Amino acid sequence: MTLPAPLIETILLRWPVARLATRGGDGACCIVPIVFAWDGRTLWSPIDGKPKREGELARVRNLRRDPRATLLLDRYDADWSRLWWIRLVGEATIHTADVPEADLRLREPIRLLRAKYPQYCETPLFRGRPTLIGMQVTGRRSWCAGEAVLEDLRQS
Amino acid sequence: MTLPAPLIETILLRWPVARLATRGGDGACCIVPIVFAWDGRTLWSPIDGKPKREGELARVRNLRRDPRATLLLDRYDADWSRLWWIRLVGEATIHTADVPEADLRLREPIRLLRAKYPQYCETPLFRGRPTLIGMQVTGRRSWCAGEAVLEDLRQS
Repeated sequence: MTLPAPLIETILLRWPVARLATRGGDGACCIVPIVFAWDGRTLWSPIDGKPKREGELARVRNLRRDPRATLLLDRYDADWSRLWWIRLVGEATIHTADVPEADLRLREPIRLLRAKYPQYCETPLFRGRPTLIGMQVTGRRSWCAGEAVLEDLRQS
Repeated sequence: MTLPAPLIETILLRWPVARLATRGGDGACCIVPIVFAWDGRTLWSPIDGKPKREGELARVRNLRRDPRATLLLDRYDADWSRLWWIRLVGEATIHTADVPEADLRLREPIRLLRAKYPQYCETPLFRGRPTLIGMQVTGRRSWCAGEAVLEDLRQS
């Protein structure tokens, strides 16, 4: 069964992690876990200060070449009656700005990210030239194992 | 920093969930959470009896068309010093058999899956014509946030 639309909205606002798939230069898929904030239409993910290798990341390079992005939010649990997933597809845009707070389009995503992740009190929200991936969602699918999932999500 | 090879082996044996990316007909990536067992060379994932829609699943259809598969194992935690991920790339083969236990190649993966997931006492290991995805791993990368991760993994 699928998840009801209002529950999907709640999960998009609150769930802390997603897995992002992009297409590499050879056409194969690349996946990476990301943090994100949802503004009701666009999903925002920063290239933040968690330790990373130097240079432009594969996800950014891939999305510049092919902006199609696929995102999975899901819950794993040893109790398989509690499983669910949401898959989003969309087009990603790479936003860079030397002073991102001065860019009106980026002010709200930055506020949402800081509000959602207290970790950004310690971890820098950006590293190097500030970069945000903005994914405009054009389609979504969901699945859940059954009624127990809906109860779980309504209570959390 | 990367994860040491022996820790990667331990995670592949024990971690309960991975996210599988395959290429859809339009070239965009599709992602889905999967359960799996690792035999030291090949990663096995069954099309099992968890509730699913009817007909051939997208992951199977996609891998028949383009066998390149990408898999992500990762841990999310609110403590960002405990994050890690492992990404595997490889070629997938779809194995089907009416009586899979009679197929020598499939006997060991089936044993590993039943040993790893007690849930298969209740949930059927297969639905419809028994199907297993076998992914031969040809490359891997890993990342971890720092030393705290190694301590975590060694203790678990």
